[in-house]
Amino acid sequence: MARKLSRLPKLITRPYEDEFYHQPGAVPGTIFIDADAPPPIIFLIDYNQTNFIREQIATPEECIPYLDGESISWVDVQGLGSQEILQRLGQVFELHPLVLEDIVNVPERPKTEDYEDQLLFIARMVVPKERICGFHSEQVSLILGKNYLLTVQEEPENDCFETVRSRIEKSKGIIRKQGADYLAYAVLDAIIDGFFPVLELYGERIEELEEEVIVKPTPQTLQNIYQIRRELLQLRRAIWPQRDAINSLIRDAPDLISEEVRIYLRDCYDHTVQVMDMVETYRELASGLMDVYLSAVSNKMNEIMKVLTIVSTIFIPLTFIAGIYGMNFNTEKSPYNMPELNSYWGYPLCWAVMLAIAVGLLFFFWRRGWLQNSVVIKQN
Amino acid sequence: MARKLSRLPKLITRPYEDEFYHQPGAVPGTIFIDADAPPPIIFLIDYNQTNFIREQIATPEECIPYLDGESISWVDVQGLGSQEILQRLGQVFELHPLVLEDIVNVPERPKTEDYEDQLLFIARMVVPKERICGFHSEQVSLILGKNYLLTVQEEPENDCFETVRSRIEKSKGIIRKQGADYLAYAVLDAIIDGFFPVLELYGERIEELEEEVIVKPTPQTLQNIYQIRRELLQLRRAIWPQRDAINSLIRDAPDLISEEVRIYLRDCYDHTVQVMDMVETYRELASGLMDVYLSAVSNKMNEIMKVLTIVSTIFIPLTFIAGIYGMNFNTEKSPYNMPELNSYWGYPLCWAVMLAIAVGLLFFFWRRGWLQNSVVIKQN
Amino acid sequence: MARKLSRLPKLITRPYEDEFYHQPGAVPGTIFIDADAPPPIIFLIDYNQTNFIREQIATPEECIPYLDGESISWVDVQGLGSQEILQRLGQVFELHPLVLEDIVNVPERPKTEDYEDQLLFIARMVVPKERICGFHSEQVSLILGKNYLLTVQEEPENDCFETVRSRIEKSKGIIRKQGADYLAYAVLDAIIDGFFPVLELYGERIEELEEEVIVKPTPQTLQNIYQIRRELLQLRRAIWPQRDAINSLIRDAPDLISEEVRIYLRDCYDHTVQVMDMVETYRELASGLMDVYLSAVSNKMNEIMKVLTIVSTIFIPLTFIAGIYGMNFNTEKSPYNMPELNSYWGYPLCWAVMLAIAVGLLFFFWRRGWLQNSVVIKQN
Amino acid sequence: MARKLSRLPKLITRPYEDEFYHQPGAVPGTIFIDADAPPPIIFLIDYNQTNFIREQIATPEECIPYLDGESISWVDVQGLGSQEILQRLGQVFELHPLVLEDIVNVPERPKTEDYEDQLLFIARMVVPKERICGFHSEQVSLILGKNYLLTVQEEPENDCFETVRSRIEKSKGIIRKQGADYLAYAVLDAIIDGFFPVLELYGERIEELEEEVIVKPTPQTLQNIYQIRRELLQLRRAIWPQRDAINSLIRDAPDLISEEVRIYLRDCYDHTVQVMDMVETYRELASGLMDVYLSAVSNKMNEIMKVLTIVSTIFIPLTFIAGIYGMNFNTEKSPYNMPELNSYWGYPLCWAVMLAIAVGLLFFFWRRGWLQNSVVIKQN
Amino acid sequence: MARKLSRLPKLITRPYEDEFYHQPGAVPGTIFIDADAPPPIIFLIDYNQTNFIREQIATPEECIPYLDGESISWVDVQGLGSQEILQRLGQVFELHPLVLEDIVNVPERPKTEDYEDQLLFIARMVVPKERICGFHSEQVSLILGKNYLLTVQEEPENDCFETVRSRIEKSKGIIRKQGADYLAYAVLDAIIDGFFPVLELYGERIEELEEEVIVKPTPQTLQNIYQIRRELLQLRRAIWPQRDAINSLIRDAPDLISEEVRIYLRDCYDHTVQVMDMVETYRELASGLMDVYLSAVSNKMNEIMKVLTIVSTIFIPLTFIAGIYGMNFNTEKSPYNMPELNSYWGYPLCWAVMLAIAVGLLFFFWRRGWLQNSVVIKQN
Repeated sequence: MARKLSRLPKLITRPYEDEFYHQPGAVPGTIFIDADAPPPIIFLIDYNQTNFIREQIATPEECIPYLDGESISWVDVQGLGSQEILQRLGQVFELHPLVLEDIVNVPERPKTEDYEDQLLFIARMVVPKERICGFHSEQVSLILGKNYLLTVQEEPENDCFETVRSRIEKSKGIIRKQGADYLAYAVLDAIIDGFFPVLELYGERIEELEEEVIVKPTPQTLQNIYQIRRELLQLRRAIWPQRDAINSLIRDAPDLISEEVRIYLRDCYDHTVQVMDMVETYRELASGLMDVYLSAVSNKMNEIMKVLTIVSTIFIPLTFIAGIYGMNFNTEKSPYNMPELNSYWGYPLCWAVMLAIAVGLLFFFWRRGWLQNSVVIKQN
Repeated sequence: MARKLSRLPKLITRPYEDEFYHQPGAVPGTIFIDADAPPPIIFLIDYNQTNFIREQIATPEECIPYLDGESISWVDVQGLGSQEILQRLGQVFELHPLVLEDIVNVPERPKTEDYEDQLLFIARMVVPKERICGFHSEQVSLILGKNYLLTVQEEPENDCFETVRSRIEKSKGIIRKQGADYLAYAVLDAIIDGFFPVLELYGERIEELEEEVIVKPTPQTLQNIYQIRRELLQLRRAIWPQRDAINSLIRDAPDLISEEVRIYLRDCYDHTVQVMDMVETYRELASGLMDVYLSAVSNKMNEIMKVLTIVSTIFIPLTFIAGIYGMNFNTEKSPYNMPELNSYWGYPLCWAVMLAIAVGLLFFFWRRGWLQNSVVIKQN
Repeated sequence: MARKLSRLPKLITRPYEDEFYHQPGAVPGTIFIDADAPPPIIFLIDYNQTNFIREQIATPEECIPYLDGESISWVDVQGLGSQEILQRLGQVFELHPLVLEDIVNVPERPKTEDYEDQLLFIARMVVPKERICGFHSEQVSLILGKNYLLTVQEEPENDCFETVRSRIEKSKGIIRKQGADYLAYAVLDAIIDGFFPVLELYGERIEELEEEVIVKPTPQTLQNIYQIRRELLQLRRAIWPQRDAINSLIRDAPDLISEEVRIYLRDCYDHTVQVMDMVETYRELASGLMDVYLSAVSNKMNEIMKVLTIVSTIFIPLTFIAGIYGMNFNTEKSPYNMPELNSYWGYPLCWAVMLAIAVGLLFFFWRRGWLQNSVVIKQN
Repeated sequence: MARKLSRLPKLITRPYEDEFYHQPGAVPGTIFIDADAPPPIIFLIDYNQTNFIREQIATPEECIPYLDGESISWVDVQGLGSQEILQRLGQVFELHPLVLEDIVNVPERPKTEDYEDQLLFIARMVVPKERICGFHSEQVSLILGKNYLLTVQEEPENDCFETVRSRIEKSKGIIRKQGADYLAYAVLDAIIDGFFPVLELYGERIEELEEEVIVKPTPQTLQNIYQIRRELLQLRRAIWPQRDAINSLIRDAPDLISEEVRIYLRDCYDHTVQVMDMVETYRELASGLMDVYLSAVSNKMNEIMKVLTIVSTIFIPLTFIAGIYGMNFNTEKSPYNMPELNSYWGYPLCWAVMLAIAVGLLFFFWRRGWLQNSVVIKQN
Repeated sequence: MARKLSRLPKLITRPYEDEFYHQPGAVPGTIFIDADAPPPIIFLIDYNQTNFIREQIATPEECIPYLDGESISWVDVQGLGSQEILQRLGQVFELHPLVLEDIVNVPERPKTEDYEDQLLFIARMVVPKERICGFHSEQVSLILGKNYLLTVQEEPENDCFETVRSRIEKSKGIIRKQGADYLAYAVLDAIIDGFFPVLELYGERIEELEEEVIVKPTPQTLQNIYQIRRELLQLRRAIWPQRDAINSLIRDAPDLISEEVRIYLRDCYDHTVQVMDMVETYRELASGLMDVYLSAVSNKMNEIMKVLTIVSTIFIPLTFIAGIYGMNFNTEKSPYNMPELNSYWGYPLCWAVMLAIAVGLLFFFWRRGWLQNSVVIKQN
């Protein structure tokens, strides 16, 4: 009565749910603004080996002077809640209508596309939820130009680029000496590395469930296994196309990406494969857990049945004997009518027979190992 | 007695069922008219940047003047119910006999075929059924010529091209400035986008079933899971070859499709992959649900068995004791014959023993956690 | 007692069973005649645009004049029961020893092989059994030469080429105007189209089983599902290599097949893919049915257990109470010995307690929904 | 007590078990002699179109004169039990150290390797065990030189080359007219054909199990299914790499194999694919049997539960009624105390009520179809 | 109470767990030192055909003179516990920052990368745990230069290179006559061969479990099967990418690897495929065991239910009869009230009826084969 099974959380990111606002047959390039989307905030970082500017700007047009210069500009748009700003953004960066559609009509499947003087990369970023299972998932679109990088995120919160920004600001590593392609790599690398903390959580949860499923399987355990399988399925759908996209960056060698950065992308590709590898391993473990659960439940049923069978099988014959001597056949009418009732040792003998039956049955059960197992499982 | 299990709907589109009228060994190009097929209605849209004509025409031959002109003509045939009209259509458009066969002898597997001056694309269009689960599925054949597009649908109802027609009429986007290949793309894109609303329905139904399967699994649930799996299998069969067909359009670069439209087709291809992705994800979820269902049913059985075992195990020994003192051994014939019956505290002691046994067993069950779980599940 | 489970039919075509007569290490090209094989009957059709001859001939040598002429000759051998005739056939057509072995030592896996002036195609033909489930399966070997086609069937019955023969005779379509390659295509097409009626039967049987497995699962149902899975496995083995063989005909473009006929083969290839597609779909459905069956059986067990538990749980405590007041404690020896027996309202109160317990337990079961479900399932 | 479950045979060929004597880090080319290996026996067959010699020779060096001649020499070594002889063999045939290692350190995975003037083919030969299930498996290494073939078998028994030897001796077919490459083909073909009798046994055993699993499933059945799956897994591991090896022989066209023999190898390749095909089919059947077994066991449980439920549910209420009238309420103390006991029709009425209950419950069970099914299954 | 289920060991090598210290967005090439990592120990072996030096050195810089000479140098670093030493090592060997990151930030996925004058190979080495199941797993990074080989191991213990070192020292085989590429091959070969003893352990454990799962399945068995599946999953993840890496070494033919050594690598590749093959086979066996376990548990339940059903079904009707004649209907008030009680043969007849019922039911059970099976299983 008291404790209820916790409800399954809604499918966290229903796969590409927003896409459904997309009316079949609409003009390609049409962009749809979700009413709940937060309004866009625009951040600009502009740097070269000597200078560094970081500021929030109000309108897309404020980028224009930076884009024309020789320095590297990183324009980071967070939020998709204004059709007007997004369209002006498209004009400032001269985006192909299909590119703008891919950026705005989230979720889009991760992919890369080469538009000669621009390179589009659609990525999916995951961030672990604080203290709750599951994860936050968000689309990040990267548009790489000759000396700029435009990134568009769905929401302002939950971003794993802070270390990249601080590397630029503090000129850590070689980032200030490299072009926009290296910056794009650094952002992509941060997105891929962001999968590892999420996966670590799943590793821990699977370990807990392994313990639970064998020692104390409950209906809640079943629900948890299913939930993990469902979430790993989502992770898999997020990482799989990302691998293909990075691979095609390395293989097709677009002009915008230098030879040197391609070596770094190879490293990033290796991490993507690691993530996929872990996701698949966890999926196999979770799927194995379901089998174990089913077996564990059957084991419990076996134990319950054993207790019932032992108790019933011992007492039902004894009760029958007691019933016999509870019959009211008239001993006076015939010497064959229950003479035992009047015999001197009748009652003690009756007990002796009953004890013999009980001991015999217990021996029978012990021989089969039922008594013993039934103890082993007691702790479960 | 009252409520019955709802019947499974018939396999909605029995895969290619009409094909069976196709007599093995028949002349290739023979066309078979299904008696139930609705008679064809022909719509014509003819446009260029300045003019726009939209009308229903009575005979295929009325198209001929439009086909000869420079403007783009879209001939849309709805219904396959007349052999004569379809054959005259074949003559007007100079269709290869095999093309006519593919168009008329539905269902054909989605595919694309290049006949030098014509390009055949067999597609499958799905439309969600209003308020009932399942979907309406229909073959659409596209024949693309230099300046015309012929589309042939199975039925007049359930068509998702209205937005395309209105885009042409209102000259939205660039459609009026482009050739027949762009029109073919627009139609294909509308077909692919039409899968999303159908998938959304399945997403919702799976969420409902996830709830149901854990909280209150019934035989009806099982049936629903099976039904969803079956329908997703159909969706998968519809979308999979469509992806290959679009891909071969992009890869083989037929002359009839311009470079620019190929970029749009790439976008359309991405959506096809998204659809496939979602179908596969839903299929995995549905298949996981079957496992969960089986486990949930086992859990319920466990609970039932526990109740039976607890009640039986407690009362069977007590009944045995009561049976003992219901025996009629003659206490007068021997001092060993049931002296308890005549003792002063016999009856109260008997009760005390019985209570001790009951409490002992309850403690045993509590130690195993049976009493407790049995409460937890009460709500289910 | 009466009705028995029907026996599983023997594996209809034990995969390649005759092959086992093939002694390991035998000379390649050795041919083995199965004692049960029917004696060969030879039919000849010879035609060009103007003439048509159709006759049964007694010896392979009678073909020779026809083979030398310009007209197209179709020699159709039905039955593999005579080593002598088959070897003479091999000499007449100048077959490579391995070709003769492939033709005679059935079953051979479907394949195509190019011997410069001859093209070998091993196909498998299926024909639905009349009114019984399952299908008849037979190997057909096609040897295509410059102006002749030799077909060799295992048995005279069950052949789906009659429509092809009549198309030639009545000069339907373009068959009389084309070469031997078109004839080979027509025969192949008839073989592939012959799979559709067989598949239609499976579609119907699966629909029936879907009904049965949910509404009234019996051990017979289980057997039927297994049987269907087994037969679909056979169909799959028959169609899969056939697709590869046709594909290699199209891809490798042997000289004996004209460009025009290759277009027709592409159509035939599409049908092969359709067949494969349907077989795979049915296999998935049948495999899903097995899961449903297992769940349905568990559901039935649940219902049975519920009835047992309800009845036992209600009556066992009541019986215990009745047992209590059946005890023979001597009420005269002590005021504590069962004073209830002598009280004025003893018996009615006893009934009242028992009724209260029964009602309480029924309420408990109703709360759990056991009473209710137990009604729902009644019809099953 | 009497009959015990038969023990599972040890994993017949533990995969590559001997390999473990291979110390990690040992010099490549090191050969390890298993203490149990039988000592090598060497047979020599030397022939050309006119001459034929067949003899057992004592030392590898005795081959040398034959190898130098123009005639074809087949040296067949049976047994791997002497390091010295094997190393001398290596010197006589000028084997690369890695080749000798592959030959001696069995089991090696089937493969082919081209050493310019020698071609190594590692094959696995299976022979059915007489009258027991399972099969004997042995590695055969073929080294093909310009005019000789060296074959090395693990053991002298169980060899399927006798027909090849007799074909050479009796000059059957074209073997005496061909080179060493044809001889190598003939040996390979015998090895591949040797799989068919083994597979035939599995076909029969699966048919028996199909019968057994539905009609009378026992724990032994379960064990048999598992055993078959395990053995088919071994067969699959033996045949799979063999296909790749033969394919690479055909594709890479090493100089040592003539064009003509390649046509024969194509035939051999087809047989390998047939074997694989059958193994996969049997594996699917065996895996389906496991599902059927589980369902059949559940069905049996259902039947058992039904019997228990029917008997308990009928008699428990009746026993309760009997218990009621076994109570000892004092009918003299109160008119409400069990007046039935003293009524004239009490006992007959009591029986009437009990019969009515029993009939009612039987009707209830009949309505559910429990009585009926319970009869159907009786024979199982 | 006494024996508890043994706890599952923690996921032995949580897949790439240390990777998680890797802060998303960190500078590529950043190296992270795990606090628990042992401090590095450096061993140097320098040799040519005539000389041999083997010593432990204190600082990376001590290698420099050796690296400049013509002799082959093998620097073996064991332990990753000092950032300073590792960075100095990077400078001495002029490692690319990404290479150093791959070496230090273990675990990295096995792979190979070609940096023109250096070749990086990341490998995973497994060593069986003494007397306990499971295995020790460790990353080994190989950097191959023109005349040196640098190997970096995670820990000083558990290394399978001792035989390689002794082969160099004692000049066994051709290792002293070959270059650094042969040394790299020898190390790789030792790593791959190290998988075989681990796999042998799993072969033995699976054989034990096969016995156990059929003869005496307990919850512990279930846990063991799951544990083996989990560990085989880890082995698979270790060997799979290693195969790809070795294959790419052979295929891409980097300059640093001579033609001759490539032949040896082909042999090493074959062993890798053998390992994969065995891992997959064991995985299939373990997964089959899970099915068998589930069936075996169901079988046990069947046996338990049979015992309960037999005992209950026999005694419940008998007890009912005994209950009948325990009723207290007043025989004096009516001739219809239990006249049996006063009849002369009442009691013996009552027994006769009860015996008849018991024998009848036993016959019924024997007909169904329940009595018999129930004996068979006794030993389990």
